[in-house]
Order: sequence, then C-alpha cells, then structure tokens
Amino acid sequence: MPFELKKVLVTGGAGYIGSHVVYTLIKTGQYKVISIDNHHNSLPASLSRVSALALSELKSSLNRDPTESEVESTKIDAHTADLTSSSSVNQIFSLYGQGGIWGVVHIAAFKAVGESTQIPLTYYANNVSATLSLLQVMTQWGCRRIVYSSSATVYGTPPEIPIKETTRREPESPYGKTKVACEWMIEDLCTSTMDGKSVPFQAISLRYFNPAGAHPSGLVGEDPKGRPGNLLPLLAHIAVGRIGNGDPANEKSILKVFGDDYPTVDGTCVRDYLHVLDLAGALDEEGKLNERVFKSRTDIVGGKDRRPGDAKFKAYNLGKGIGVSVLEIVEAMKKATGFQFRTEVIGRRAGDVPYLIAEPTLAQTELGFSAPRTLDVMCADLWRWQKANPQGYDA
Amino acid sequence: MPFELKKVLVTGGAGYIGSHVVYTLIKTGQYKVISIDNHHNSLPASLSRVSALALSELKSSLNRDPTESEVESTKIDAHTADLTSSSSVNQIFSLYGQGGIWGVVHIAAFKAVGESTQIPLTYYANNVSATLSLLQVMTQWGCRRIVYSSSATVYGTPPEIPIKETTRREPESPYGKTKVACEWMIEDLCTSTMDGKSVPFQAISLRYFNPAGAHPSGLVGEDPKGRPGNLLPLLAHIAVGRIGNGDPANEKSILKVFGDDYPTVDGTCVRDYLHVLDLAGALDEEGKLNERVFKSRTDIVGGKDRRPGDAKFKAYNLGKGIGVSVLEIVEAMKKATGFQFRTEVIGRRAGDVPYLIAEPTLAQTELGFSAPRTLDVMCADLWRWQKANPQGYDA
Ligand SMILES: NC(=O)c1ccc[n+]([C@@H]2O[C@H](COP(=O)([O-])OP(=O)(O)OC[C@H]3O[C@@H](n4cnc5c(N)ncnc54)[C@H](O)[C@@H]3O)[C@@H](O)[C@H]2O)c1
Ligand SMILES: NC(=O)c1ccc[n+]([C@@H]2O[C@H](COP(=O)([O-])OP(=O)(O)OC[C@H]3O[C@@H](n4cnc5c(N)ncnc54)[C@H](O)[C@@H]3O)[C@@H](O)[C@H]2O)c1
Repeated sequence: MPFELKKVLVTGGAGYIGSHVVYTLIKTGQYKVISIDNHHNSLPASLSRVSALALSELKSSLNRDPTESEVESTKIDAHTADLTSSSSVNQIFSLYGQGGIWGVVHIAAFKAVGESTQIPLTYYANNVSATLSLLQVMTQWGCRRIVYSSSATVYGTPPEIPIKETTRREPESPYGKTKVACEWMIEDLCTSTMDGKSVPFQAISLRYFNPAGAHPSGLVGEDPKGRPGNLLPLLAHIAVGRIGNGDPANEKSILKVFGDDYPTVDGTCVRDYLHVLDLAGALDEEGKLNERVFKSRTDIVGGKDRRPGDAKFKAYNLGKGIGVSVLEIVEAMKKATGFQFRTEVIGRRAGDVPYLIAEPTLAQTELGFSAPRTLDVMCADLWRWQKANPQGYDA
Repeated sequence: MPFELKKVLVTGGAGYIGSHVVYTLIKTGQYKVISIDNHHNSLPASLSRVSALALSELKSSLNRDPTESEVESTKIDAHTADLTSSSSVNQIFSLYGQGGIWGVVHIAAFKAVGESTQIPLTYYANNVSATLSLLQVMTQWGCRRIVYSSSATVYGTPPEIPIKETTRREPESPYGKTKVACEWMIEDLCTSTMDGKSVPFQAISLRYFNPAGAHPSGLVGEDPKGRPGNLLPLLAHIAVGRIGNGDPANEKSILKVFGDDYPTVDGTCVRDYLHVLDLAGALDEEGKLNERVFKSRTDIVGGKDRRPGDAKFKAYNLGKGIGVSVLEIVEAMKKATGFQFRTEVIGRRAGDVPYLIAEPTLAQTELGFSAPRTLDVMCADLWRWQKANPQGYDA
C-alpha cells in the first residue's frame, strides 16, 4: 500500500446513519473502515451495498485503474458483535493490535423514545453500559479518539429556540438520559487528570436533530426492523405499500398525527430535518477527520485547570436550523411520491415538545459543517431508495 | 421460627453507613439481613461486630431468653462478592429463590469525589453499571423494592440554600453524575409501563448530606482504607495518632483547610452533618420499612398517566438542615478529643461550594425522619470509636 489507511471503527455501521457515515468515510480514501454491529436493527447487506457502491463510484471517477489502497479503502472489515459484550469488543480490538484502531465513530444504540419508557433497563444496558465498556476497551488498546452520536433529546423541553449547545441538559425520556450519561462519561474521561502515563482522550459529541433522506443512488437507505418509529420512513412505507397496500383509502394508510393544537405554524410539531449525508459530511468529507474533528483547540470544554494539549471534549448540534412541521413533511412527501396521504389528528403524545430546532452555528464554524440539501432533496432521495427497495435490504 | 423475618439485602453492608444501617435493621427484629460487599473499602469484621453487638444488646434488654427468630435476626448472611459481577449477584439471589429477597437497601458505591475525577470510568462501572445489573437481577428474582443511597452531590452548586428535593440536578463531579444516573435508572424503572405481567417497582432515593459519628458503644464506626477523605475521620486519625504520631506540633498533624475566603460565617465551607444512626433511623427504627418507606402514596413522582397502585419513586434529603463550618468542626473535635488541632489555610479545592444544607422537611413529614443527635454527640461517638479502635477493625 502506498500509504497507511487510518483504521476507523464505526459502531452500528450497518444502521441508517452508520451506513451513510461509513460511505462518507470510505469516499475520502483515507480510512480503512471497521464496523461492529449486532444487527439488532439492521442487515449486513447495507455494508456490502455501501462497499460495492463506493468501489463502483471510485472506478467511474478515475481515468486510470484504482490503486491498491484505493480499492482497499472501499472494503469494510465488518464484525458481527454485541457492544454489551466487553470480551467480544476486546477481541476485535486485539485483531488490530495496540494503537491499531486510530479512532472510533460510536453510532450503535437503541433509539426509540417510546420503547425506552417501557424497557428502560435494556436501554441503559445497551446504550450506557455498552459505551462504558467500549471506552474501557479503547483505553486498553491505546485508542483515544471518539466521535459520539448524541441527540437533540439531551435538551428535553428546550427553554429557548433555536437550541444552543450551552443549553442545560434536562432529558425527559430514558433514551435521552442514556445519551446524557454517555456524554458525561466521555466528557469526564477527556477532562480526567489521568495518571500522567496516559495520552488524554479527545472526543466530540454530535447532537443529531432529525436525520432524513438516503444516498441519491437509491442503493443505501433507512431500513428499520418492524414498523418505522419515525415520520419520514413511516410515510415511505405507506407510499410504497408496505403499510396499507399502497391504497390511500386503506385505513392503515392514514397517518396518525399526534396533536394539532401546539403553538406552531399549523399546530403540529416542528422538527429540524437534515439530510443524512449532510450529517455524515460534518464528520468528514475530505479526509480531514483529524484536522476538523480532533483539531487541537484551546477553547473547548474542560476543567478550569486544563493546560494546552490536555484532553478535550466538545458537543455540537447538527441540524439545519430550520423548522418543518408534521403537515409540511406530509406535503413534501406527497410531492416526492405522488401518494395521496391522508392524516387523522389524534391526541398529543406524552413527551413531545412543539419545537426542536438547532442553532447549528458552532458546527458550521468549527467543523465546517453545512447542510445544503433541501427538504425536497431529502424526500426525493428517501423515495428513490424506498421505491427501489420496497422491502429494504431484505429483497 | 414464630414468624417469617423479611429478607433484606444491604449492599455495601460492611462499610461505614452500611454497618450502621444493618445494625438498625437488625434492632427492629423484623428482618433477616443479607449483605453483599467486596470489601474494597471495608473489612468483614464490621459485620461480625454489628451482629455480636445486636445479640448482646438483645440479651441484656430481655428478662427472658430471646426467641429463635430474635436470635436469627441478629445473624447476618454476609456474602463477599462484587456487584459489578452480574453472575455473582445472580447466584446470591438464587440462594433465596424467587421472591425470596423482600427488598434491597443499596449502599455500595465508590464515593471519593476527587478520585472520581481521576478515574471516572471506574466510577461509572462500579456505581452505574453495578446498579444497573443489580436492578436487572432484582427484576429477574421478583424483588421490586429498593432504597437507593444518593447524595447531596446530585445538586452540584445549589441555586438556593437550604436545598429542596425539587432542585434541578446538575452534578459537577463524575461521582455526582453516577448518583444522578442511578436515580434516573431507578426512577425510569419505577415509572416504566412495563409489560403488564410485572409488579411495578417501588423505590426511594435518600440523598445523604454529611453522615458523621458512630455507634455509641465504640464497637462500630467508620474505618476507611487509606487516608480518610472526609474531615471528621481525618481529625479522628490525627487525634488518635495514626497521622502525625499524636503530636499536635508534628507537621502531619496540621489540618489543611481548603480556603477561608468563602462567603460563610468564618470563610470556610459549611456542610450539613448528621449522625449516621439518625440517617439509618430514617430507613427504619421500628420495623416499619414497609409502611414508612414503601408506603403506597398518591403524591409521588411518576408519569402523568400513573394510576393509583402503579410504580413509585421519590427522593428525600437526609440532613439536619443545620450548617456547620470546617472551623466549627475542628473546635467540636478539640472539645471531644482534647487534642489541640492546628490548621493551615491553603487554596480552595476545585468543585467545593460554600454551602450545602438540606431542607429535610419532606423526609420528616413522609418518612418520620428526625435527627436529634447533636454535633457534640457525633464527635463524642466518633472519638469513642476511634480511641477504642485506633487501627479500626484491623486490630
Ligand atoms: N435516527 C435518528 O432520528 C437519530 C436522531 C438523533 C440521534 N440518533 C442516534 O444516532 C445513532 C444511530 O441511529 P440510527 O438512526 O442510525 O439507528 P439504527 O438503529 O439504524 O442504527 C443503529 C445500529 O446500531 C446497531 N446496534 C444497536 N445496539 C448494538 C449493540 N449493542 N451492539 C452492536 N450494534 C448495535 C443496530 O443493529 C443498528 O445497526 C444512535 O446512537 C441514535 O441514538 C439517531
Ligand atoms: N459517607 C458520606 O459522606 C456519604 C455522603 C453521601 C452519600 N454517601 C453514599 O453512601 C454510600 C455508602 O457510603 P459510605 O460512607 O458508607 O462508604 P463506604 O466506602 O464505607 O461503604 C461502601 C461499601 O460498599 C462496598 N463496595 C463498594 N463497591 C462495591 C462493589 N462493586 N461490590 C460490593 N461492594 C462494594 C465497599 O467495600 C464498602 O464496604 C455510598 O453509596 C455513598 O455514595 C456517602
């Protein structure tokens, strides 16, 4: 190999966000991607698709044969393992040796707010204990860079819109609490005084608002197991006929809207949707994971007594900063799919807040983040994926 | 046995608070105490002492022979095991069978604020993951009552003094964050909608302020491994000669005071000390753990949709509601010990706040809590224990 590809571990790499992040990392040609996923909510096929897509795009972009390292960087070391098993994770790290894995993008988690209120311990185990044991294994193998996948839910009901990163964290669901607990652990590790011997940890936490859309090829997209919990994939399942047989008149095709009496533009809840590839781009678009994401900064959160060069941690909102209501989403999906969605307003859902909109300036300034893709692009990309893969990767 | 003793598991039973709680539970004659401790910060001797003390007090209080169940209730099933090992905890529960353990008083934890900033992951593992796995094992064995040992540190820098339970939790140290994360897990479990089959969890969280003192017999007391991190045991070690050879002139006998420029009565930090036996009394003094602590209440925290009889969780401050400064503690210990302590003011310690004083009304009203023992009694009891056991239980 002409030069050494940096080994980056993506946990939950086969999932919705994970597969798009893996794709984006591969496209830089700088990384060898390793994935750990237990396929609780995904299929291994997503990663084969990503790999094949990246290779084919690479080939058609060159007017020469790809180099060995270029080809190598499109191949994914995909491990099927459960992050809650410390010994499995340890074994995977051991395959790459001390210092072998350069950094981790930690995406794996359970993410259904409602479910988390029913089986909270399962959520704490899968999200908090698993993250703790990942951090412990990383420390042991000399891997000290991590990007954490956090969420807008850390804010609970925000006192101010748009939401700045400095807003106090007051999560309201068990899911949201697991995200805060993980931020705490990572932050505390970064700011720990350690034992002198250790190189300090570097970390950022990305607080995703509402990721949406899919890769424009229609080859890679969101494929949740069971009935989609999120609005856009639910509409896509209805439009494609997985729910309600593709018949707008079918009872099952009716979208239940949780409340239309919120103090918003049309009474329905407003969220901040961003294209999943814009999200992934925040991490890396030009092979600059190091410079952009782990750049040594003097301004980032830490103890008062932090000296330059000490460990660092910082959290960033990832959103467009634009609010879109439920009914606006339905309209956009009508336009993208041609399907005549019908809605029925039912009561408010416990825990929903009227507005969740990011203030994304910090990520724009410090990570070079931008989210140019519009809502129409998100819906078009989602629909291209869903139409081509009505049964997701299962087909 | 004339009647069935309720089996209560005390985790960390051999520790400072644990041993006094075990003693208090035994004294009611209602419980069979089971203890789990890994002796990270304690010795098995504390429990043998508690058991012998309780039996001898029992005998001298009766003008008849004690009954079989009375004698039985003074014996402790002491298990040496680590709570982070889910399989060990499971095995212990299995000894008592399904529904065998009636309730848990969960006291075991690492508790040094400063250390937690150095080795945060160890704290999250020992406090959060261990509590999670305890809760999972409890669920499995049909044990659904828990008293959690929380701390004033959950409040961080309180916006108001005295501190009410409704104050937002904004912990500042990893230790404090582990306490909040455990409260979250327990609260979420209590308010989870569960699967219909399950009997809901009942729990309270006791937020201890500054426990102090010892059993008045001088047989049971605080015996931390290594140099005491807390003020009172530190002064006791100095007075007894374990530090500074009992010589007030010795350099090592000088108490370092962290800052005397706080906006307090004498510039030193003010805390809310309560006698460890008053703390234990909050839990149970008359065999009413059930009625008092797990009494069915309609007013306690839960989801909006909670129906009467549903799961419940509530947190209570345990403190006297009286502030005592560092210099006032030194004076009280001079009086109790006759030792001429010298102090030297050094810089403030990161993370210290001027005032931490409980508003204990809620525990008084709802748990029948009271803390009659004065500061002088705490110091006298501490000194009686330390003088009789200069090397703690090691002797
Ligand atoms: N999608 C959203 O709306 C959203 C919003 C904010 C934050 N997030 C966060 O982003 C991350 C990814 O979300 P997503 O939408 O891609 O979800 P997803 O379910 O599609 O992906 C998560 C992946 O992690 C895997 N996984 C879960 N637990 C695992 C374990 N213990 N061991 C190994 N693999 C495991 C799943 O199988 C899945 O492939 C999560 O951390 C989530 O909390 C998502
Ligand atoms: N002492 C205080 O000032 C204070 C104040 C507020 C809250 N608390 C809380 O009260 C509890 C008890 O405090 P304490 O002063 O008695 O401390 P302690 O150290 O004397 O007692 C804790 C006991 O738990 C045991 N333990 C720790 N980790 C364990 C594990 N993984 N498995 C089994 N046993 C384990 C220790 O060996 C020790 O015997 C802790 O939860 C602490 O956070 C203490």
